[in-house]
Formats: sequence, structure tokens, C-alpha cells
Amino acid sequence: MRVRGAPLIGATGAYGMALAMREDASDPGLDRACALLSATRPTAVNLQHALRRMSARLLPLPPPARADAAWREAAAYAEEDVELNRALGKHGAALLHRLHGETGRRLEVMTHCNAGWLATVDCGTALAPVYLAHDAGLPVHVWVSETRPRNQGLLTAWELRQHGIEHTVIVDNAAGHLLARGCVDLVIVGADRVSAHGDVCNKIGTYLKALAAGRHNVPFYAAVPGPTIDWELRDSSLIAIEERADDEVRRVAGWSMERRRAEVALLDAASAVFNPGFDVTPAQLVTGLITERGLCAASEVGLATLYPERRMA
Amino acid sequence: MRVRGAPLIGATGAYGMALAMREDASDPGLDRACALLSATRPTAVNLQHALRRMSARLLPLPPPARADAAWREAAAYAEEDVELNRALGKHGAALLHRLHGETGRRLEVMTHCNAGWLATVDCGTALAPVYLAHDAGLPVHVWVSETRPRNQGLLTAWELRQHGIEHTVIVDNAAGHLLARGCVDLVIVGADRVSAHGDVCNKIGTYLKALAAGRHNVPFYAAVPGPTIDWELRDSSLIAIEERADDEVRRVAGWSMERRRAEVALLDAASAVFNPGFDVTPAQLVTGLITERGLCAASEVGLATLYPERRMA
Repeated sequence: MRVRGAPLIGATGAYGMALAMREDASDPGLDRACALLSATRPTAVNLQHALRRMSARLLPLPPPARADAAWREAAAYAEEDVELNRALGKHGAALLHRLHGETGRRLEVMTHCNAGWLATVDCGTALAPVYLAHDAGLPVHVWVSETRPRNQGLLTAWELRQHGIEHTVIVDNAAGHLLARGCVDLVIVGADRVSAHGDVCNKIGTYLKALAAGRHNVPFYAAVPGPTIDWELRDSSLIAIEERADDEVRRVAGWSMERRRAEVALLDAASAVFNPGFDVTPAQLVTGLITERGLCAASEVGLATLYPERRMA
Repeated sequence: MRVRGAPLIGATGAYGMALAMREDASDPGLDRACALLSATRPTAVNLQHALRRMSARLLPLPPPARADAAWREAAAYAEEDVELNRALGKHGAALLHRLHGETGRRLEVMTHCNAGWLATVDCGTALAPVYLAHDAGLPVHVWVSETRPRNQGLLTAWELRQHGIEHTVIVDNAAGHLLARGCVDLVIVGADRVSAHGDVCNKIGTYLKALAAGRHNVPFYAAVPGPTIDWELRDSSLIAIEERADDEVRRVAGWSMERRRAEVALLDAASAVFNPGFDVTPAQLVTGLITERGLCAASEVGLATLYPERRMA
């Protein structure tokens, strides 16, 4: 969790391969590095995508050439993430401008977890449209969901503060009430993996927001750069949902009165804990996907309009 | 929050009136006490119910007789809550036995917040059926939702531990994933106020669980003693939803490494917080109400079958 956010996990995996090639660039060394990095996080597909790309680039080369090539390929991967962020953000910002045009008042966006600067190489996925729209003068306010157990919503609040964007933090439980009371114009979340049919696997709790948004006809979008789409995945129930340490639920980290990092225990070992890291929102609850190539329906057909080369594959 | 749980708030309000009558049993004193206690919590209707009952009992009496009468009336109110808990628990336990009969395996119950011993005068509302069924030998396991921001789920975990009932704590965000994956046979929650049409106002986050339960055809019940029904309330959007202090979201209390009570700050004052205490689950998402008189549909007609005297009113 030093590195989090699917796109950043991908880029870090690529650089991890580059570091490993400095130590041992042999074929077994390459395989070992790939397996080691691959096992760190099971859910975000970006990591597998980055590692496959690095292997495909490096394996045909003689081992002595691999270290330099790996470094260049990782840098190219990171640079592409910057481009993906910006292109996706531009398409998403156009959506925000359109929705604002319909109401004429401050746009109310709800998000979940953190899919901003801190989760990607550049300006984010779900937050990129908000940043670009705000920079273009759109009045926008963000409802930031705390996102237990790791409270990544507080990272989002921190980012928005740095950017001077109005926002309000809520506990995850409050999302249904706000959606029911008409306080939200649209929900935008990131994604850790999107199936070929448009099902969205994202941080645990996303699904509950999608259910409430669907119930109250609030548009629900996932911001999804290409490397987050798992084209081979037809059945999203097969996604390995990372089960994380129970300590994340038992203990909460913050800062003490003296503003030093501190932790409190909420629950001792006498009660069991179950801590799944992600859930799956079925495509029919997703109004659309915001990608670097534009917006599309969350469906095989919708994705094929933007990625025709995949359709043929 | 020294006192929490709608039934316990009601009983404590009744005893509050009894204490006030010792100080000043005049008509203005009675009115003042009533107004003061009434303003402490806006959402749970049990408090208004208890105060109205105390006033109706005391106002016809001469002031010198009020102190003793108030004490007796408060004790009677508390005794009745014990009876309500037991009767409701019995009807709810019969439901659990029936559901267990259908599957033959350990019954998986999900609850939200705390509606057990710590929220009522006796064995609780939502948890009473679980206690009685467990005591009768039914194999049962409870999914306990943390219930941010006040983490009352940890009170539920503590209660279940005392009672030797298997349970697993989850963050609120995980409820949708568990319901989608078929891990839950039924959801039982308490209530702070139920409208004459069966809408259920309960701790914030209840609505999200109801949406997910509805989506996956998992029965969703509210355990509702008579005093929690607001017979005059036709439009549940009129319920005053308590907006609680933002500090509840900004700070988390637990215990330190030395097992002393400690607190950490998650968020400083630079970000706004919105902290509604309750939400409303519409009746059509509620499979049924468990009351002291039996089970009924969450509707005006359903309630009329159990409370015909109210229908005539």
C-alpha cells in the first residue's frame, strides 16, 4: 500500500521490472521478477498488463541489452499514463460541462476512494475531469466518501484542497441518503479492472453507491483508461477479489493531539474480521465509461465502438 | 450519546421526566422538562412517545403527587420495553427458525449499528431474535457492519461475544459484496422511526444495505416495537434527520497500545464534513416488520392487521 491506485500500480510494476533487470537480466531472472511483482496485488489488471508488456519487450533482447531497454520501456509506460490521464480527463470534463449546462448551478459530483494524482502518474482518472473542468471555470463541488477501511477518501480531500476545489467529506454510509435527497448530479469512480462486458471492479463500497445512484437516476460513470480493461475477462465473478489484512479494520491510523502519526485499536482479536478490498458493479448499473478515447456505454458493443481493434482480436 | 438506541432513549426520557418532577413538579416545570428532553434527539420517535405518555399521566395530577407517580410511570415504561423486546424477539426467532429450516445450514444474518442489550432496556430489537434463536440451539452467524462514524457495530460485536454467538465484523462498504455473493440469508435492522406506511428511518447506511438486499432477493426485516411507529407520519421525507457534529467523522476513538482510551484525528478543519445520523428506507425495500405482535408487511395495510385500534383512529 506504499503504492496504490491501479494506474500507478501498473507504472510501478514496469519500473520494478527495470530495477530487477539491473540485478539479473537472464531469462530466469526476468521470469522471477515478473512472478514476484505479479503476486503483489491480484485485482488491478494494470499490473498484469504492464508486466506482460515489459516481458514482451525484453524477452526477444539479449540479456545484456535488457537493463537499458527496460528503463526506457518503463519510462514510456509512465509517459503514456500521463497522456491517458489527460485524454480521459478532457472527455470527462466535456461531460461535466454538458451536465452543468443542463442545470446551470454548481455541479455536485460524488466520488469514492482516491483516483486522482496520488493514484496515477499524472492528474488521475476519476478526478481528472473534475480538475480540468474546475480549471476551465466550471463551478463544482465534490462529495468525498471516507472509504473505509483505508480512508483513501482523505487523500482525495487532501488533493482537492491543494487544487482549491470545494468538497465535503462524508462517511461511506451517508452516500445513499445524499443520492436519495437529490444532492448529487453524477457519481464518478475509478476502476481496478473492467470486464469485456463493462462490469466495473473497484474499491469496496463502489457497488453500494452504484445501486443508490441507479435507484435515483443519478448518472454513474467509471473513469477507465485502456490498460484497466481486461479484454479476456467475460465473467466478472472470476476476478480475484483481494482479501486484505484484518488489521486494516481493527486499527485506525491518524494523528495524535501533538499531530504525530498515531494509531488506535477499535476491535481486539476476539471478533473475526472479513476485509475484501474490492467489489464488482455490474455493467447495467454503469451509465457509461469515460476512457482516453471518449465516452461509451458499459457493454461489449459500447467498448467496441472505441476499441475496434480489440473487437477483431 | 451516553444513551443511544431508540427504545433506550424513550425509557431514559421517561426517567428524565421523573427526575425533573423531583425538582419542580409545577405545570411550567413539567413543560420545561418535556421541552428540554424532547430537544435532545430529533429522530427517534420513542422519545416523543415516552414524553407524551408521561405528560398525559402527570398533568391531571396535583403537582405534589407528580414525583412519585412519574417514578412509577417511568418504571412501568421500562418494564414494558422488556416485554416488547421479549415478544418481538420471540416472533423474530420463529422467522429465523423458518429460514433455517429452508436451508438446513448455519443461518447467516447481517445487521447494522447496534440494536441489542445496549440500545434497549432488555435483550434488544434487531438482536433479540438472534439471541433467542441461538439460545434455542439454532446455528447462527452474524455479519456485523462497523457503522461509521460512531462504530456502534463494535458494540454489537461485544454483545455477541458476551453471548457466545459467532460473528464477523466488516466495514460498511463490504455489505454489497457479501449480499451479491450469497453470503447472507437475511438482514435485520432496528429502527428509530417507522412511518404509518412502513418506511423505516434508521442509522445512516441502513438504506444502502436495503438496496443491496433488494437487488439480491435477500429478505430485509426491521425489528420495530410499537412505540417506534409514528402513526401520524404519512410522509417520511418530513422526518427530521439529525445532523451530528463533524467531529464524529474527523476523529476516531479507540484504545492506544497501552490499552488506554485514545483518539486520532483523520481530517483537519480545512475540509468540510456533512454528518447525517439517519436515513430512510422506503417500505417497498422492506420485506417485513418484526413487532411485538408478530410479523407484518411494511405497509399501512400490513400494520393495520397487527394494530387494528390504530387503523380506526
